[in-house]
Amino acid sequence: MEFGDLGLKLHELFENRTELTNKGIHRPPRAGIWGNRTEGACSIVLSGGYIDDIDQLDYILYTGEGGRDPKSKRQVKDQEYIRGNKGLQISHEFNLPVRVIRDKVTKYGPKEGLRYDGLYYVSDYERIRGKDGFFICRFHMVSEDQNIISSLEKSKSFKDELPKIKEYVVSKHERKPEITIKIKNLYKNTCQICNEKLISPKGLISVGAHIRGLGKPHDGPDSIENLLCLCPNHHALFDSYAFYIEPHTYKIIGLEEFKDKKINILHKINNEHLEYQKKLFERNN
Amino acid sequence: MEFGDLGLKLHELFENRTELTNKGIHRPPRAGIWGNRTEGACSIVLSGGYIDDIDQLDYILYTGEGGRDPKSKRQVKDQEYIRGNKGLQISHEFNLPVRVIRDKVTKYGPKEGLRYDGLYYVSDYERIRGKDGFFICRFHMVSEDQNIISSLEKSKSFKDELPKIKEYVVSKHERKPEITIKIKNLYKNTCQICNEKLISPKGLISVGAHIRGLGKPHDGPDSIENLLCLCPNHHALFDSYAFYIEPHTYKIIGLEEFKDKKINILHKINNEHLEYQKKLFERNN
Repeated sequence: MEFGDLGLKLHELFENRTELTNKGIHRPPRAGIWGNRTEGACSIVLSGGYIDDIDQLDYILYTGEGGRDPKSKRQVKDQEYIRGNKGLQISHEFNLPVRVIRDKVTKYGPKEGLRYDGLYYVSDYERIRGKDGFFICRFHMVSEDQNIISSLEKSKSFKDELPKIKEYVVSKHERKPEITIKIKNLYKNTCQICNEKLISPKGLISVGAHIRGLGKPHDGPDSIENLLCLCPNHHALFDSYAFYIEPHTYKIIGLEEFKDKKINILHKINNEHLEYQKKLFERNN
Repeated sequence: MEFGDLGLKLHELFENRTELTNKGIHRPPRAGIWGNRTEGACSIVLSGGYIDDIDQLDYILYTGEGGRDPKSKRQVKDQEYIRGNKGLQISHEFNLPVRVIRDKVTKYGPKEGLRYDGLYYVSDYERIRGKDGFFICRFHMVSEDQNIISSLEKSKSFKDELPKIKEYVVSKHERKPEITIKIKNLYKNTCQICNEKLISPKGLISVGAHIRGLGKPHDGPDSIENLLCLCPNHHALFDSYAFYIEPHTYKIIGLEEFKDKKINILHKINNEHLEYQKKLFERNN
Protein backbone atom coordinates (compact mmCIF):
# COMPACT_ATOMS: atom_id res chain seq x y z
CA MET A 1 0.00 0.00 0.00
CA GLU A 2 1.34 3.43 -0.95
CA PHE A 3 0.71 6.43 1.29
CA GLY A 4 0.98 10.09 0.37
CA ASP A 5 0.38 12.19 -2.73
CA LEU A 6 2.44 9.95 -5.06
CA GLY A 7 3.55 13.09 -6.87
CA LEU A 8 0.01 13.72 -8.16
CA LYS A 9 -1.09 17.19 -9.18
CA LEU A 10 -3.88 18.58 -7.02
CA HIS A 11 -7.21 18.18 -8.90
CA GLU A 12 -5.63 15.93 -11.51
CA LEU A 13 -8.30 14.12 -13.56
CA PHE A 14 -8.65 10.43 -14.38
CA GLU A 15 -10.87 8.70 -16.89
CA ASN A 16 -12.14 5.81 -14.83
CA ARG A 17 -11.49 3.47 -11.90
CA THR A 18 -9.33 1.22 -14.07
CA GLU A 19 -6.89 4.08 -14.60
CA LEU A 20 -6.71 4.64 -10.82
CA THR A 21 -6.10 0.93 -10.29
CA ASN A 22 -3.43 0.64 -12.95
CA LYS A 23 -1.57 3.72 -11.78
CA GLY A 24 -1.62 2.51 -8.18
CA ILE A 25 -3.54 5.54 -6.95
CA HIS A 26 -6.49 3.53 -5.71
CA ARG A 27 -5.90 -0.18 -6.28
CA PRO A 28 -9.25 -1.83 -5.42
CA PRO A 29 -11.33 -1.88 -8.61
CA ARG A 30 -14.68 -1.32 -6.87
CA ALA A 31 -14.26 -0.75 -3.10
CA GLY A 32 -14.35 2.84 -1.83
CA ILE A 33 -11.57 2.33 0.71
CA TRP A 34 -8.06 1.12 -0.04
CA GLY A 35 -7.08 -0.07 3.38
CA ASN A 36 -6.71 -2.97 5.77
CA ARG A 37 -6.35 -3.79 9.44
CA THR A 38 -2.57 -3.83 9.55
CA GLU A 39 -1.45 -0.83 7.50
CA GLY A 40 -4.34 1.63 7.72
CA ALA A 41 -6.03 3.23 4.70
CA CYS A 42 -4.21 5.25 2.03
CA SER A 43 -7.06 6.35 -0.28
CA ILE A 44 -10.82 6.61 -0.60
CA VAL A 45 -13.10 7.23 -3.55
CA LEU A 46 -16.25 9.29 -3.01
CA SER A 47 -18.87 7.93 -5.34
CA GLY A 48 -22.09 9.11 -3.79
CA GLY A 49 -23.21 5.61 -2.90
CA TYR A 50 -24.02 6.18 0.76
CA ILE A 51 -26.99 8.22 1.90
CA ASP A 52 -25.22 9.13 5.13
CA ASP A 53 -22.25 10.74 3.37
CA ILE A 54 -21.91 14.51 3.71
CA ASP A 55 -19.45 16.43 1.55
CA GLN A 56 -18.44 20.01 2.23
CA LEU A 57 -15.33 19.71 0.08
CA ASP A 58 -12.82 20.65 2.77
CA TYR A 59 -14.61 18.39 5.24
CA ILE A 60 -16.25 15.04 4.58
CA LEU A 61 -18.41 12.72 6.62
CA TYR A 62 -17.57 9.46 4.93
CA THR A 63 -19.60 6.32 5.51
CA GLY A 64 -17.55 3.14 5.82
CA GLU A 65 -18.08 -0.06 3.86
CA GLY A 66 -20.26 -3.13 4.25
CA GLY A 67 -23.86 -4.06 4.95
CA ARG A 68 -25.45 -2.64 1.81
CA ASP A 69 -27.83 -4.38 -0.51
CA PRO A 70 -26.04 -4.38 -3.89
CA LYS A 71 -29.27 -3.70 -5.79
CA SER A 72 -31.12 -1.12 -3.73
CA LYS A 73 -27.87 0.41 -2.34
CA ARG A 74 -29.62 0.71 1.02
CA GLN A 75 -28.14 -0.40 4.33
CA VAL A 76 -29.49 -3.82 5.29
CA LYS A 77 -26.94 -4.81 7.96
CA ASP A 78 -24.75 -3.13 10.60
CA GLN A 79 -21.25 -2.07 9.58
CA GLU A 80 -18.30 -3.19 11.72
CA TYR A 81 -14.75 -1.93 12.27
CA ILE A 82 -13.31 -4.47 9.85
CA ARG A 83 -11.42 -4.33 6.52
CA GLY A 84 -11.44 -0.79 5.07
CA ASN A 85 -13.29 0.62 8.09
CA LYS A 86 -10.59 -0.78 10.36
CA GLY A 87 -8.06 0.76 7.97
CA LEU A 88 -9.55 4.23 8.39
CA GLN A 89 -9.67 3.72 12.17
CA ILE A 90 -5.93 3.03 12.07
CA SER A 91 -5.36 6.05 9.82
CA HIS A 92 -7.00 8.10 12.58
CA GLU A 93 -4.90 6.54 15.34
CA PHE A 94 -1.62 7.04 13.49
CA ASN A 95 -2.59 10.27 11.74
CA LEU A 96 -1.93 8.85 8.29
CA PRO A 97 -2.67 10.88 5.14
CA VAL A 98 -5.53 9.58 2.99
CA ARG A 99 -5.84 10.43 -0.71
CA VAL A 100 -9.36 11.56 -1.58
CA ILE A 101 -10.76 11.02 -5.07
CA ARG A 102 -14.16 12.32 -6.13
CA ASP A 103 -16.28 10.64 -8.76
CA LYS A 104 -18.31 12.69 -11.25
CA VAL A 105 -21.56 11.55 -9.59
CA THR A 106 -20.79 13.41 -6.34
CA LYS A 107 -21.95 16.96 -5.70
CA TYR A 108 -18.53 18.53 -6.02
CA GLY A 109 -17.12 15.92 -8.39
CA PRO A 110 -15.65 16.66 -11.83
CA LYS A 111 -17.70 16.91 -15.02
CA GLU A 112 -16.28 13.62 -16.25
CA GLY A 113 -14.40 10.71 -14.67
CA LEU A 114 -12.64 11.11 -11.33
CA ARG A 115 -10.58 13.84 -9.70
CA TYR A 116 -7.76 13.63 -7.15
CA ASP A 117 -8.41 16.20 -4.40
CA GLY A 118 -5.33 15.86 -2.25
CA LEU A 119 -4.68 14.43 1.21
CA TYR A 120 -7.14 14.35 4.07
CA TYR A 121 -6.78 13.26 7.69
CA VAL A 122 -9.32 11.30 9.75
CA SER A 123 -10.06 13.80 12.54
CA ASP A 124 -12.60 11.58 14.28
CA TYR A 125 -14.89 8.63 13.67
CA GLU A 126 -17.97 7.05 15.16
CA ARG A 127 -20.28 4.07 14.83
CA ILE A 128 -23.80 5.40 14.78
CA ARG A 129 -27.22 4.52 13.42
CA GLY A 130 -27.50 5.71 9.83
CA LYS A 131 -30.62 6.89 8.05
CA ASP A 132 -31.61 3.32 7.19
CA GLY A 133 -31.59 2.38 10.87
CA PHE A 134 -28.48 0.19 10.86
CA PHE A 135 -25.16 0.97 12.44
CA ILE A 136 -22.66 2.64 10.12
CA CYS A 137 -19.02 3.52 10.72
CA ARG A 138 -18.58 7.16 9.86
CA PHE A 139 -15.27 8.96 9.37
CA HIS A 140 -14.67 12.68 9.66
CA MET A 141 -12.12 13.66 7.04
CA VAL A 142 -10.45 17.06 7.03
CA SER A 143 -8.51 18.35 4.03
CA GLU A 144 -4.82 18.99 4.68
CA ASP A 145 -5.17 22.05 2.47
CA GLN A 146 -7.40 24.71 4.02
CA ASN A 147 -7.55 26.49 0.64
CA ILE A 148 -8.95 23.55 -1.26
CA ILE A 149 -12.17 25.38 -2.19
CA SER A 150 -10.33 28.24 -3.89
CA SER A 151 -7.77 25.92 -5.51
CA LEU A 152 -10.62 23.90 -7.01
CA GLU A 153 -12.31 27.10 -8.15
CA LYS A 154 -9.16 27.98 -10.08
CA SER A 155 -8.85 24.49 -11.59
CA LYS A 156 -12.34 24.81 -13.15
CA SER A 157 -12.69 21.01 -13.11
CA PHE A 158 -16.04 20.90 -11.33
CA LYS A 159 -19.68 20.92 -12.34
CA ASP A 160 -21.78 23.73 -10.91
CA GLU A 161 -21.31 25.61 -7.73
CA LEU A 162 -18.72 25.21 -5.01
CA PRO A 163 -19.42 25.80 -1.29
CA LYS A 164 -18.62 29.25 0.09
CA ILE A 165 -15.15 29.76 1.47
CA LYS A 166 -15.24 29.80 5.28
CA GLU A 167 -13.03 31.81 7.57
CA TYR A 168 -10.98 29.56 9.80
CA VAL A 169 -10.81 31.05 13.25
CA VAL A 170 -9.14 28.45 15.39
CA SER A 171 -6.23 26.59 13.88
CA LYS A 172 -4.19 23.98 15.68
CA HIS A 173 -1.24 26.29 16.10
CA GLU A 174 -3.21 29.21 17.46
CA ARG A 175 -4.40 27.23 20.45
CA LYS A 176 -2.72 28.48 23.58
CA PRO A 177 -1.79 26.39 26.59
CA GLU A 178 -2.83 28.92 29.28
CA ILE A 179 -6.26 27.58 30.07
CA THR A 180 -5.17 23.96 29.95
CA ILE A 181 -2.44 24.81 32.44
CA LYS A 182 -5.01 26.66 34.55
CA ILE A 183 -7.30 23.64 34.84
CA LYS A 184 -4.39 21.33 35.62
CA ASN A 185 -3.21 23.68 38.36
CA LEU A 186 -6.72 24.09 39.77
CA TYR A 187 -7.07 20.34 40.26
CA LYS A 188 -3.40 19.90 41.16
CA ASN A 189 -3.18 17.40 38.26
CA THR A 190 -5.65 15.07 39.98
CA CYS A 191 -8.11 13.21 37.77
CA GLN A 192 -11.67 14.41 38.29
CA ILE A 193 -12.93 10.85 37.75
CA CYS A 194 -10.63 8.60 39.80
CA ASN A 195 -8.84 11.23 41.92
CA GLU A 196 -5.52 9.65 41.03
CA LYS A 197 -2.31 11.65 40.87
CA LEU A 198 0.35 10.32 38.52
CA ILE A 199 3.76 11.29 39.89
CA SER A 200 6.93 11.38 37.81
CA PRO A 201 10.32 13.11 37.99
CA LYS A 202 9.10 15.36 35.19
CA GLY A 203 6.18 16.51 37.34
CA LEU A 204 2.60 15.38 37.84
CA ILE A 205 0.87 13.94 34.78
CA SER A 206 -2.64 14.94 33.78
CA VAL A 207 -4.53 15.97 30.66
CA GLY A 208 -6.63 19.07 30.07
CA ALA A 209 -9.51 17.34 28.27
CA HIS A 210 -12.04 19.22 26.16
CA ILE A 211 -15.60 18.08 26.78
CA ARG A 212 -16.74 19.16 23.33
CA GLY A 213 -13.73 18.55 21.09
CA LEU A 214 -11.85 21.40 19.43
CA GLY A 215 -11.85 21.74 15.65
CA LYS A 216 -13.75 19.61 13.16
CA PRO A 217 -16.15 17.90 13.65
CA HIS A 218 -17.12 19.15 17.12
CA ASP A 219 -16.03 22.80 17.01
CA GLY A 220 -15.98 23.13 20.80
CA PRO A 221 -14.53 26.27 22.38
CA ASP A 222 -11.08 26.45 23.97
CA SER A 223 -12.50 27.70 27.29
CA ILE A 224 -12.24 26.53 30.89
CA GLU A 225 -15.98 25.76 31.03
CA ASN A 226 -15.31 23.18 28.33
CA LEU A 227 -12.37 21.55 30.11
CA LEU A 228 -11.82 18.74 32.57
CA CYS A 229 -8.66 17.60 34.34
CA LEU A 230 -8.30 13.86 33.70
CA CYS A 231 -5.68 11.13 33.89
CA PRO A 232 -4.64 9.80 30.45
CA ASN A 233 -6.76 6.64 30.91
CA HIS A 234 -9.98 8.48 31.68
CA HIS A 235 -9.19 10.98 28.95
CA ALA A 236 -8.95 8.17 26.40
CA LEU A 237 -12.15 6.54 27.72
CA PHE A 238 -14.04 9.86 27.71
CA ASP A 239 -12.99 10.64 24.13
CA SER A 240 -14.00 7.15 23.01
CA TYR A 241 -17.50 7.48 24.51
CA ALA A 242 -16.99 4.82 27.18
CA PHE A 243 -18.74 7.12 29.67
CA TYR A 244 -20.32 10.53 30.03
CA ILE A 245 -20.91 13.02 32.79
CA GLU A 246 -24.58 13.66 33.47
CA PRO A 247 -25.33 17.39 32.98
CA HIS A 248 -26.33 19.25 36.19
CA THR A 249 -25.78 16.27 38.52
CA TYR A 250 -22.18 15.63 37.33
CA LYS A 251 -22.62 11.91 37.89
CA ILE A 252 -20.36 9.48 36.02
CA ILE A 253 -22.45 7.25 33.75
CA GLY A 254 -21.02 4.22 32.00
CA LEU A 255 -18.13 3.18 34.24
CA GLU A 256 -19.06 0.31 36.55
CA GLU A 257 -16.48 1.16 39.23
CA PHE A 258 -17.69 4.76 39.55
CA LYS A 259 -21.40 3.99 39.37
CA ASP A 260 -23.52 6.86 40.73
CA LYS A 261 -20.40 8.73 41.87
CA LYS A 262 -20.05 12.42 41.11
CA ILE A 263 -16.91 13.84 39.55
CA ASN A 264 -14.70 16.03 41.70
CA ILE A 265 -15.70 19.54 40.68
CA LEU A 266 -14.07 22.87 41.56
CA HIS A 267 -14.94 25.01 38.52
CA LYS A 268 -17.98 25.96 36.49
CA ILE A 269 -18.64 23.50 33.67
CA ASN A 270 -20.95 24.44 30.81
CA ASN A 271 -23.84 21.96 30.89
CA GLU A 272 -24.45 22.38 27.17
CA HIS A 273 -21.06 20.86 26.46
CA LEU A 274 -21.91 17.94 28.77
CA GLU A 275 -25.20 17.51 26.88
CA TYR A 276 -23.28 17.45 23.61
CA GLN A 277 -20.90 14.74 24.83
CA LYS A 278 -23.83 12.76 26.31
CA LYS A 279 -25.50 12.74 22.89
CA LEU A 280 -22.31 11.45 21.29
CA PHE A 281 -22.16 8.74 23.96
CA GLU A 282 -25.74 7.72 23.19
CA ARG A 283 -25.16 7.73 19.44
CA ASN A 284 -22.09 5.52 19.79
CA ASN A 285 -23.44 3.03 22.34
CA MET B 1 4.51 36.56 23.82
CA GLU B 2 4.67 35.99 20.06
CA PHE B 3 5.06 32.49 18.64
CA GLY B 4 6.20 31.50 15.17
CA ASP B 5 8.63 32.86 12.59
CA LEU B 6 7.27 36.45 12.70
CA GLY B 7 7.95 36.67 8.99
CA LEU B 8 11.70 36.48 9.56
CA LYS B 9 14.01 35.32 6.79
CA LEU B 10 15.85 32.10 7.62
CA HIS B 11 19.43 32.95 8.72
CA GLU B 12 18.62 36.67 8.97
CA LEU B 13 21.33 38.54 10.90
CA PHE B 14 21.03 40.95 13.83
CA GLU B 15 23.57 43.28 15.31
CA ASN B 16 23.00 42.68 18.99
CA ARG B 17 20.55 41.60 21.69
CA THR B 18 19.03 45.08 21.84
CA GLU B 19 17.91 44.77 18.25
CA LEU B 20 16.27 41.40 19.03
CA THR B 21 14.53 42.97 22.03
CA ASN B 22 13.29 46.01 20.15
CA LYS B 23 12.01 44.01 17.21
CA GLY B 24 10.15 41.64 19.53
CA ILE B 25 12.08 38.63 18.30
CA HIS B 26 13.56 37.79 21.69
CA ARG B 27 12.33 40.27 24.30
CA PRO B 28 14.40 39.48 27.43
CA PRO B 29 17.57 41.58 27.22
CA ARG B 30 19.83 38.96 28.85
CA ALA B 31 17.96 35.71 29.54
CA GLY B 32 18.45 32.85 27.08
CA ILE B 33 14.82 31.74 27.17
CA TRP B 34 11.81 33.90 26.36
CA GLY B 35 9.14 31.92 28.16
CA ASN B 36 7.01 31.49 31.24
CA ARG B 37 4.90 28.94 33.08
CA THR B 38 1.57 29.90 31.50
CA GLU B 39 2.30 30.38 27.81
CA GLY B 40 5.34 28.23 27.10
CA ALA B 41 8.54 29.46 25.45
CA CYS B 42 8.68 31.15 22.02
CA SER B 43 12.42 31.77 21.53
CA ILE B 44 15.87 30.90 22.83
CA VAL B 45 19.29 32.41 22.26
CA LEU B 46 22.29 30.10 22.12
CA SER B 47 25.21 32.01 23.55
CA GLY B 48 27.62 29.29 24.53
CA GLY B 49 27.25 29.98 28.24
CA TYR B 50 26.52 26.46 29.42
CA ILE B 51 29.11 23.74 29.43
CA ASP B 52 26.41 21.09 29.06
CA ASP B 53 25.06 22.53 25.80
CA ILE B 54 25.61 20.46 22.67
CA ASP B 55 24.96 21.93 19.24
CA GLN B 56 24.73 19.86 16.07
CA LEU B 57 22.91 22.64 14.20
CA ASP B 58 19.82 20.60 13.29
CA TYR B 59 19.72 19.21 16.82
CA ILE B 60 20.52 20.98 20.07
CA LEU B 61 20.87 19.88 23.66
CA TYR B 62 20.02 23.12 25.38
CA THR B 63 20.68 23.66 29.08
CA GLY B 64 17.93 25.52 30.94
CA GLU B 65 18.41 28.58 33.10
CA GLY B 66 19.29 29.21 36.72
CA GLY B 67 21.84 28.15 39.33
CA ARG B 68 24.94 29.60 37.70
CA ASP B 69 27.56 31.75 39.36
CA PRO B 70 27.51 35.01 37.38
CA LYS B 71 31.29 35.37 37.56
CA SER B 72 32.66 31.90 36.96
CA LYS B 73 29.65 30.87 34.77
CA ARG B 74 29.76 27.48 36.49
CA GLN B 75 26.75 25.68 37.92
CA VAL B 76 26.59 26.23 41.70
CA LYS B 77 22.98 25.19 42.35
CA ASP B 78 20.39 22.78 40.95
CA GLN B 79 18.09 24.02 38.20
CA GLU B 80 14.34 23.58 38.59
CA TYR B 81 11.38 23.46 36.21
CA ILE B 82 10.50 27.10 36.80
CA ARG B 83 10.38 30.29 34.68
CA GLY B 84 11.96 29.73 31.26
CA ASN B 85 12.60 26.05 31.97
CA LYS B 86 8.91 25.57 32.77
CA GLY B 87 8.19 27.46 29.53
CA LEU B 88 10.23 24.99 27.47
CA GLN B 89 8.55 22.10 29.30
CA ILE B 90 5.17 23.52 28.18
CA SER B 91 6.48 24.01 24.63
CA HIS B 92 7.22 20.29 24.66
CA GLU B 93 3.79 19.34 26.02
CA PHE B 94 1.91 21.50 23.50
CA ASN B 95 4.36 21.07 20.64
CA LEU B 96 4.93 24.82 20.29
CA PRO B 97 7.48 26.21 17.81
CA VAL B 98 10.55 27.86 19.37
CA ARG B 99 12.65 30.41 17.47
CA VAL B 100 16.35 29.63 17.75
CA ILE B 101 18.93 32.40 17.56
CA ARG B 102 22.66 31.74 17.58
CA ASP B 103 25.20 34.18 18.97
CA LYS B 104 28.57 34.66 17.27
CA VAL B 105 30.35 33.00 20.21
CA THR B 106 28.75 29.61 19.50
CA LYS B 107 30.41 27.00 17.31
CA TYR B 108 28.01 27.38 14.39
CA GLY B 109 27.17 31.01 15.09
CA PRO B 110 27.58 33.90 12.61
CA LYS B 111 30.81 35.85 12.13
CA GLU B 112 29.24 38.88 13.82
CA GLY B 113 26.18 39.52 15.98
CA LEU B 114 23.31 37.02 16.07
CA ARG B 115 21.55 34.87 13.50
CA TYR B 116 17.94 33.62 13.37
CA ASP B 117 17.98 29.91 12.51
CA GLY B 118 14.29 29.11 12.21
CA LEU B 119 11.87 27.14 14.34
CA TYR B 120 12.71 24.16 16.49
CA TYR B 121 10.53 21.82 18.54
CA VAL B 122 11.31 20.42 21.99
CA SER B 123 11.38 16.69 21.24
CA ASP B 124 12.22 15.68 24.82
CA TYR B 125 13.67 17.03 28.04
CA GLU B 126 15.26 15.75 31.21
CA ARG B 127 16.60 16.88 34.57
CA ILE B 128 20.01 15.33 34.97
CA ARG B 129 23.33 15.98 36.70
CA GLY B 130 25.42 18.29 34.56
CA LYS B 131 29.20 18.35 34.30
CA ASP B 132 29.47 20.58 37.38
CA GLY B 133 27.60 18.00 39.47
CA PHE B 134 24.36 19.92 39.92
CA PHE B 135 21.01 19.10 38.38
CA ILE B 136 20.33 20.85 35.09
CA CYS B 137 17.16 20.90 32.99
CA ARG B 138 18.12 19.92 29.48
CA PHE B 139 15.98 20.31 26.40
CA HIS B 140 16.30 18.39 23.16
CA MET B 141 15.52 20.74 20.31
CA VAL B 142 14.98 19.50 16.76
CA SER B 143 14.94 21.84 13.77
CA GLU B 144 11.67 21.96 11.87
CA ASP B 145 13.74 22.21 8.71
CA GLN B 146 15.68 19.02 8.02
CA ASN B 147 17.73 20.86 5.40
CA ILE B 148 19.02 23.52 7.78
CA ILE B 149 22.66 22.52 7.33
CA SER B 150 22.58 22.99 3.56
CA SER B 151 20.47 26.17 3.79
CA LEU B 152 23.05 27.66 6.16
CA GLU B 153 25.83 26.55 3.84
CA LYS B 154 24.22 28.54 1.05
CA SER B 155 23.69 31.61 3.25
CA LYS B 156 27.45 31.82 3.96
CA SER B 157 26.74 33.56 7.29
CA PHE B 158 28.80 31.25 9.46
CA LYS B 159 32.38 31.10 10.65
CA ASP B 160 34.31 27.97 9.77
CA GLU B 161 33.00 24.56 9.15
CA LEU B 162 29.48 23.19 9.34
CA PRO B 163 28.63 19.65 10.47
CA LYS B 164 28.25 17.01 7.76
CA ILE B 165 24.78 16.53 6.32
CA LYS B 166 23.22 13.35 7.68
CA GLU B 167 20.85 11.06 5.87
CA TYR B 168 17.52 10.87 7.63
CA VAL B 169 16.31 7.33 7.54
CA VAL B 170 13.20 7.30 9.72
CA SER B 171 10.86 10.24 9.45
CA LYS B 172 7.59 10.58 11.32
CA HIS B 173 5.55 9.89 8.23
CA GLU B 174 7.44 6.83 7.19
CA ARG B 175 6.66 5.02 10.40
CA LYS B 176 4.18 2.28 9.78
CA PRO B 177 1.50 1.10 12.19
CA GLU B 178 1.88 -2.65 11.51
CA ILE B 179 4.15 -3.55 14.41
CA THR B 180 2.28 -1.38 16.88
CA ILE B 181 -0.93 -3.14 15.86
CA LYS B 182 0.85 -6.48 16.19
CA ILE B 183 1.89 -5.84 19.80
CA LYS B 184 -1.58 -4.55 20.71
CA ASN B 185 -3.17 -7.67 19.24
CA LEU B 186 -0.64 -9.98 20.90
CA TYR B 187 -1.55 -8.63 24.35
CA LYS B 188 -5.24 -8.16 23.43
CA ASN B 189 -4.84 -4.47 24.37
CA THR B 190 -4.07 -5.41 27.97
CA CYS B 191 -1.49 -3.31 29.81
CA GLN B 192 1.67 -5.30 30.57
CA ILE B 193 2.03 -3.43 33.85
CA CYS B 194 -1.44 -3.37 35.45
CA ASN B 195 -3.20 -5.96 33.24
CA GLU B 196 -6.10 -3.54 32.78
CA LYS B 197 -8.26 -3.57 29.66
CA LEU B 198 -9.86 -0.25 28.77
CA ILE B 199 -13.13 -0.95 26.95
CA SER B 200 -14.92 1.58 24.76
CA PRO B 201 -17.44 1.49 21.91
CA LYS B 202 -14.56 2.37 19.59
CA GLY B 203 -12.69 -0.76 20.67
CA LEU B 204 -10.13 -1.58 23.35
CA ILE B 205 -7.69 1.21 24.22
CA SER B 206 -3.96 0.60 24.58
CA VAL B 207 -0.71 2.16 23.46
CA GLY B 208 2.16 0.53 21.60
CA ALA B 209 4.97 2.10 23.64
CA HIS B 210 8.56 2.24 22.45
CA ILE B 211 11.04 1.35 25.18
CA ARG B 212 13.82 3.36 23.58
CA GLY B 213 12.06 6.33 21.96
CA LEU B 214 11.93 6.77 18.18
CA GLY B 215 13.65 9.74 16.56
CA LYS B 216 15.79 12.34 18.29
CA PRO B 217 17.18 12.15 20.94
CA HIS B 218 16.86 8.39 21.53
CA ASP B 219 16.94 6.96 17.99
CA GLY B 220 15.36 3.68 19.04
CA PRO B 221 14.24 1.20 16.39
CA ASP B 222 10.63 0.72 15.30
CA SER B 223 10.73 -3.01 16.04
CA ILE B 224 8.63 -5.33 18.16
CA GLU B 225 11.57 -6.08 20.49
CA ASN B 226 11.48 -2.39 21.38
CA LEU B 227 7.75 -2.27 22.09
CA LEU B 228 5.44 -2.77 25.03
CA CYS B 229 1.65 -2.80 25.21
CA LEU B 230 0.62 -0.33 27.92
CA CYS B 231 -2.43 1.58 29.09
CA PRO B 232 -2.18 5.35 28.54
CA ASN B 233 -1.40 5.97 32.23
CA HIS B 234 1.51 3.56 32.38
CA HIS B 235 2.71 4.78 29.02
CA ALA B 236 2.86 8.37 30.34
CA LEU B 237 4.59 7.22 33.54
CA PHE B 238 7.10 5.09 31.61
CA ASP B 239 7.98 7.94 29.24
CA SER B 240 8.40 10.32 32.19
CA TYR B 241 10.84 7.98 33.97
CA ALA B 242 8.51 7.21 36.89
CA PHE B 243 9.55 3.55 36.63
CA TYR B 244 11.65 1.16 34.63
CA ILE B 245 11.61 -2.53 33.81
CA GLU B 246 14.65 -4.38 35.11
CA PRO B 247 16.49 -6.03 32.20
CA HIS B 248 16.47 -9.87 32.22
CA THR B 249 14.17 -10.18 35.27
CA TYR B 250 11.43 -7.91 33.80
CA LYS B 251 10.57 -6.65 37.29
CA ILE B 252 8.80 -3.30 37.63
CA ILE B 253 10.99 -0.86 39.57
CA GLY B 254 9.71 2.47 40.85
CA LEU B 255 5.98 1.90 41.24
CA GLU B 256 5.02 1.17 44.84
CA GLU B 257 1.87 -0.79 43.95
CA PHE B 258 3.72 -3.15 41.62
CA LYS B 259 6.77 -3.62 43.79
CA ASP B 260 8.73 -6.73 42.84
CA LYS B 261 6.07 -7.76 40.36
CA LYS B 262 7.08 -8.89 36.86
CA ILE B 263 5.46 -7.46 33.78
CA ASN B 264 3.20 -9.73 31.75
CA ILE B 265 5.45 -10.90 28.94
CA LEU B 266 4.55 -12.84 25.78
CA HIS B 267 7.20 -11.62 23.32
CA LYS B 268 10.95 -11.21 23.13
CA ILE B 269 12.09 -7.85 24.46
CA ASN B 270 15.57 -6.56 23.71
CA ASN B 271 17.35 -6.17 27.04
CA GLU B 272 19.62 -3.46 25.64
CA HIS B 273 16.61 -1.21 25.16
CA LEU B 274 15.55 -1.90 28.75
CA GLU B 275 19.09 -1.02 29.87
CA TYR B 276 18.86 2.24 27.94
CA GLN B 277 15.56 3.19 29.57
CA LYS B 278 16.89 2.19 33.00
CA LYS B 279 19.82 4.58 32.52
CA LEU B 280 17.42 7.39 31.65
CA PHE B 281 15.41 6.57 34.77
CA GLU B 282 18.55 6.75 36.90
CA ARG B 283 19.69 10.02 35.31
CA ASN B 284 16.33 11.63 35.95
CA ASN B 285 15.70 10.38 39.49
